[in-house]
Amino acid sequence: MIAPNRPIRLALFGGGPGAFIGAVHRRAALLDLRFQLVAGAFSRDASRSAAQARAFMVDEARAYTSVEALIAGEIGREDGVEAVAIATPNDSHFAIAEAALKAGLHVISDKPMTSTLAQATALEQIVAQTDCAYALTYTYIGYPMIREARASVASGLLGRVRKIVVTYPQGWLSDSVEHTLPGAAWRTDPSRAGIGGCIGDIGVHAFQLAEYISGLCVERLCADLSSVVQDRVLDDDCNILLRFAGDVPGVLMASQISLGERNGLSIAIYGEQRALSWSHERPGELRFLHPDNRMETVFAGSAAIGPDGMAASRLPAGHPEGFIEAFASIYSDFADAIQGQRGLLDGRLPGIETGLRSMRFVAAAVASSQNRSWIEMENSQQ
Amino acid sequence: MIAPNRPIRLALFGGGPGAFIGAVHRRAALLDLRFQLVAGAFSRDASRSAAQARAFMVDEARAYTSVEALIAGEIGREDGVEAVAIATPNDSHFAIAEAALKAGLHVISDKPMTSTLAQATALEQIVAQTDCAYALTYTYIGYPMIREARASVASGLLGRVRKIVVTYPQGWLSDSVEHTLPGAAWRTDPSRAGIGGCIGDIGVHAFQLAEYISGLCVERLCADLSSVVQDRVLDDDCNILLRFAGDVPGVLMASQISLGERNGLSIAIYGEQRALSWSHERPGELRFLHPDNRMETVFAGSAAIGPDGMAASRLPAGHPEGFIEAFASIYSDFADAIQGQRGLLDGRLPGIETGLRSMRFVAAAVASSQNRSWIEMENSQQ
Amino acid sequence: MIAPNRPIRLALFGGGPGAFIGAVHRRAALLDLRFQLVAGAFSRDASRSAAQARAFMVDEARAYTSVEALIAGEIGREDGVEAVAIATPNDSHFAIAEAALKAGLHVISDKPMTSTLAQATALEQIVAQTDCAYALTYTYIGYPMIREARASVASGLLGRVRKIVVTYPQGWLSDSVEHTLPGAAWRTDPSRAGIGGCIGDIGVHAFQLAEYISGLCVERLCADLSSVVQDRVLDDDCNILLRFAGDVPGVLMASQISLGERNGLSIAIYGEQRALSWSHERPGELRFLHPDNRMETVFAGSAAIGPDGMAASRLPAGHPEGFIEAFASIYSDFADAIQGQRGLLDGRLPGIETGLRSMRFVAAAVASSQNRSWIEMENSQQ
Amino acid sequence: MIAPNRPIRLALFGGGPGAFIGAVHRRAALLDLRFQLVAGAFSRDASRSAAQARAFMVDEARAYTSVEALIAGEIGREDGVEAVAIATPNDSHFAIAEAALKAGLHVISDKPMTSTLAQATALEQIVAQTDCAYALTYTYIGYPMIREARASVASGLLGRVRKIVVTYPQGWLSDSVEHTLPGAAWRTDPSRAGIGGCIGDIGVHAFQLAEYISGLCVERLCADLSSVVQDRVLDDDCNILLRFAGDVPGVLMASQISLGERNGLSIAIYGEQRALSWSHERPGELRFLHPDNRMETVFAGSAAIGPDGMAASRLPAGHPEGFIEAFASIYSDFADAIQGQRGLLDGRLPGIETGLRSMRFVAAAVASSQNRSWIEMENSQQ
Repeated sequence: MIAPNRPIRLALFGGGPGAFIGAVHRRAALLDLRFQLVAGAFSRDASRSAAQARAFMVDEARAYTSVEALIAGEIGREDGVEAVAIATPNDSHFAIAEAALKAGLHVISDKPMTSTLAQATALEQIVAQTDCAYALTYTYIGYPMIREARASVASGLLGRVRKIVVTYPQGWLSDSVEHTLPGAAWRTDPSRAGIGGCIGDIGVHAFQLAEYISGLCVERLCADLSSVVQDRVLDDDCNILLRFAGDVPGVLMASQISLGERNGLSIAIYGEQRALSWSHERPGELRFLHPDNRMETVFAGSAAIGPDGMAASRLPAGHPEGFIEAFASIYSDFADAIQGQRGLLDGRLPGIETGLRSMRFVAAAVASSQNRSWIEMENSQQ
Repeated sequence: MIAPNRPIRLALFGGGPGAFIGAVHRRAALLDLRFQLVAGAFSRDASRSAAQARAFMVDEARAYTSVEALIAGEIGREDGVEAVAIATPNDSHFAIAEAALKAGLHVISDKPMTSTLAQATALEQIVAQTDCAYALTYTYIGYPMIREARASVASGLLGRVRKIVVTYPQGWLSDSVEHTLPGAAWRTDPSRAGIGGCIGDIGVHAFQLAEYISGLCVERLCADLSSVVQDRVLDDDCNILLRFAGDVPGVLMASQISLGERNGLSIAIYGEQRALSWSHERPGELRFLHPDNRMETVFAGSAAIGPDGMAASRLPAGHPEGFIEAFASIYSDFADAIQGQRGLLDGRLPGIETGLRSMRFVAAAVASSQNRSWIEMENSQQ
Repeated sequence: MIAPNRPIRLALFGGGPGAFIGAVHRRAALLDLRFQLVAGAFSRDASRSAAQARAFMVDEARAYTSVEALIAGEIGREDGVEAVAIATPNDSHFAIAEAALKAGLHVISDKPMTSTLAQATALEQIVAQTDCAYALTYTYIGYPMIREARASVASGLLGRVRKIVVTYPQGWLSDSVEHTLPGAAWRTDPSRAGIGGCIGDIGVHAFQLAEYISGLCVERLCADLSSVVQDRVLDDDCNILLRFAGDVPGVLMASQISLGERNGLSIAIYGEQRALSWSHERPGELRFLHPDNRMETVFAGSAAIGPDGMAASRLPAGHPEGFIEAFASIYSDFADAIQGQRGLLDGRLPGIETGLRSMRFVAAAVASSQNRSWIEMENSQQ
Repeated sequence: MIAPNRPIRLALFGGGPGAFIGAVHRRAALLDLRFQLVAGAFSRDASRSAAQARAFMVDEARAYTSVEALIAGEIGREDGVEAVAIATPNDSHFAIAEAALKAGLHVISDKPMTSTLAQATALEQIVAQTDCAYALTYTYIGYPMIREARASVASGLLGRVRKIVVTYPQGWLSDSVEHTLPGAAWRTDPSRAGIGGCIGDIGVHAFQLAEYISGLCVERLCADLSSVVQDRVLDDDCNILLRFAGDVPGVLMASQISLGERNGLSIAIYGEQRALSWSHERPGELRFLHPDNRMETVFAGSAAIGPDGMAASRLPAGHPEGFIEAFASIYSDFADAIQGQRGLLDGRLPGIETGLRSMRFVAAAVASSQNRSWIEMENSQQ
């Protein structure tokens, strides 16, 4: 086990020049001094990988172009990597995770876990046979007020949950930008993204957030997925009726053709005694509605929140923390899991079970939409 | 035809002591001096009807207890009523409208038009055989910024519409208040409300608003209606997938068990070139999203809005107008329709066609939810 | 005394074609059936006054062109006017009020009470010698949440008040619109507006609101008034340091050159135990801040508010009421004062004392700004 | 000159266990890989300084307890520190900066620059005689939308500026927390904070932000400072009338007894053609008001903003960045200044001139308030 008093040595897959999420991984991993970035396969192209190593202040000699090369170069080194972060397009998630786990490396990966459900179940087996930690960067659960929301529901503050609405509108794929933006190209390409487009890219965030906060599992759903932009194969707009455990109704919307929208993940959970709502537009706020219509807003870092929310707050109320900090809290949990607190996995920290559920959700949504019918989540599992 | 230079003589059905919407009708009808309230059947109970007449400054001798009595008392009087407003529970809408129209009186009625689809189609025939104006108080279309939104879509500002989301959360039926509140009692009683609970009470507002602004008709839907509160027979929570003409996807949510919510009707329409959104929480604002994420907010009564929005603004920007004023704009349209502009009906002003469509929507939603399947709107018409 | 079971007969001064506030008076006076509009001097021009009478559904024979003519025509009629509303430019407020009061008519007047402090003190004497009610339409105190705010402070909820900030930005005089807009012309003309421009037009609203809610009187001030637009004589931007009773610090800002601003009157009051804030942009909301940073928002018409706020709410929470309704609540109070509750005057309803204080405030602000020094409010009284 | 392709070696003064701003310095300095933290005097207490070194993953041998010890230990080392960050209470800012600059180290310091005006003018001389970079962490100017706002004004988008309002309410000193919180203790102690309390702690942020965005200098002011909490010697509430160059009126409010407020720095600048506003509650948004009342909101990281705002955005629109990222942008500018772009100092990056102006502002505000009179900024300079 890695001692808790030093940073864990991390390698990053992806994050080459121009990439969005790779740089987030780099910043987040280092923010709380829990990791140091010592190697990476930042690109499949050697010169691009080396260039990014320089930009990341990583020894160029440790810039690789494949997981195999990285393992070959790092395993056995006294100062070799101990964990890897996967920030590549979906189609390589499985192969990198498999190789890394089998080499005894801890893994933290972008969602969706894999690009197919078959890969997801295969990965479940691999994780079951290793002592390594496997975690997923469902970013939004790193926000203090999401932790606070989850704790509020768990404490019974809301009473029995009766309705859940989660929406995730984006507008950046409103046009055929796949012809010009690399990040759009692979996300709209079934051979790289997998069976889901929008549903796999952001729908899973919405799904996971709803289950994470409410503690309720989706049991069945009826999905209406569309490919709104001409000639697009994968879905870019998703509207889904849900039923959670206990027959609790819900709605999930995710869209990448909601023109002008930025990244507006929002959730509302209605209970018998109180309701809560949160929006990524103002991540440091959590709102509670009362039966007398009063709306109470509590703020990250303030004395009004409980230990879970406070533990994920680095700054006092009124000092905004954002996306990088939320991501960093997931990295901190990942470090904790590696350094002894394995119990965090699939509890506070999304792990293999969460990843598998999300893949089943994607598969069920796609099947439901094709059949234009309600479907049980489990029906998608064969 | 009634000359435009004097108020039209109006009678009100409903609005007895304690009623909510009756007093709104009274204030709205008089606000722009287009009507005067001269009679009414404010209650089926004579003393209550008389008491309300006094409160409304109406001659007690013209306080009736039924539509038959009112017609008998008013028709033939030189100063007799010319139009009636129906603000009673749903089950009496049809009978009052039928009697009034047959007596040559203009009618303005609360939604839903009737309590059954059969009544709705019957009423359509009656309206077709009269010269009287028949209008429905779909309140929200009286707001200036809804007029502006509709004009924006019609002008092509948004480009082709690609997604519509309309939500209407309320929380006032979160508990079994039907045992104590008269307004809750009839709304949750199938013998008085009709086939729909929440869907008929507020779902129709959301439905009509979406069609009114977008100019697109719902063609098919898949509904999930619930009776969340124990022992409630009618639905109190509605989640519906929609497909509008042109296969445009949409979602409609309406709920009366969204604890703590006030009356939050909201709509977002996404086009190829621009998106718009409006929320009843801030009715004097209309927001436009641009491809570069810019959000533009325009305000009622300001120089930034067009003639339709301005025509429904009584005050300059920054001087809030509300629910009563919106209602009053519908009354003004109704007066215009009576006094010569029949063409407003089912254009700017919801009339019999709108009412019938809404009833078909309710029937389709109920059928879809029972069958747990998608349904064509027309399938509900037999 | 006028019996409470019938509307009071009202005449309106001002409100001719194109006027803004006259139509508000007309709608507000009638909204709750406490008044009927039976006469008026809507313009000094006979044909315009008659035209407006027709538009207001008033008998043309009772359209006058001066207060003298109106008194001559109405006094002695069995159905003659009982009260007058003054909605004319400031320079005529005094003369109309004086004549009306001396004729035994109740008076409700726009602010500022008069155009000079000398007139204000003269009017105080006149009011002291009559049994008629004299009230001022400080509109904003008609909003339910302002009543609620006042009650909250009075109840001790905030603890000792320690700071007050009130701001009132408008942008409509950002250009030299006095050359084209009649309403701008008289407001920027010292011979018609009086000694204050912005300070007299909207600064007094801010001043009165702060004193009304807090229950504290301004004792001294240091003002910085500017005439920002070229060639404008009167102030169009006002920034004022205040000290309330108990040496409580405060700031008042009022501006008519804050380009783009609509009508954003806002106030925040900080106590030892809680703070409150209200903004005219969202008049139905009142926010409370707690020591742990929690923000609690309560809504007009909801079960969370007390009797004062509820008494001024006509509709349940989520059904916006606006400017006209706030104005109407002042008219209702005025009717109550006339029909027996004289005690409302200068308590809930602004009367002669409030008017005189406001005029002293204007005079003090002008003097302080000219002298570039702090001034005691009382220093302006000689 | 330090080559731009490697991190600069930084030492931190302050940031010991429990400190707020020290950890912000640490995270911000490292976020963009422009610095590495290699040493520090985290506390005057050796064991506390060593403990913090361990927490910061710094070699314990390089944990010092004074600037003298740090210089002695680091100067001459091949891998010795090249720059120092000062995050200590105000009374030590001068001595550390002086010693470091004289030892040839670059300095980045918390505001206020010094605790007295005499120290500030002395430091100006020292900076004039060195080649080292001297910068101040006026945090808020690190936000992308503040850069964008400044560029907007400079481009002439607003036209001539006519009014500036800047407010900075906090509530954390509403009680006598100086008896329990170390951060409150030194801020309220004249021997450690200097001549200003709230005015020096946060008033200077507001002052600097107004000058930074508008490009206009404050020429004279009239301040009303209070010590609201009993037995507090320094001011905890500040309200100030301003006149900027060109006689432009303004208001500055800063308060630490505004109960319940978090950290709500806000600014509005009104021009002849457009107005802008920004609030720290939603730092990624910048609002523009137009003459027709339209409000346009532009977002950090979006295509709607210019190069200055974009250069300070790490993430696409909708992915919130916060306080740490803003701070990091200042550190990046500081690195740029060190590595060749000295011209940034007192342009984009606050340096000695800004620091001196801020100290003169504090002195002028204190003097004005004591004299209860307007004062020229220059009057405070002797």
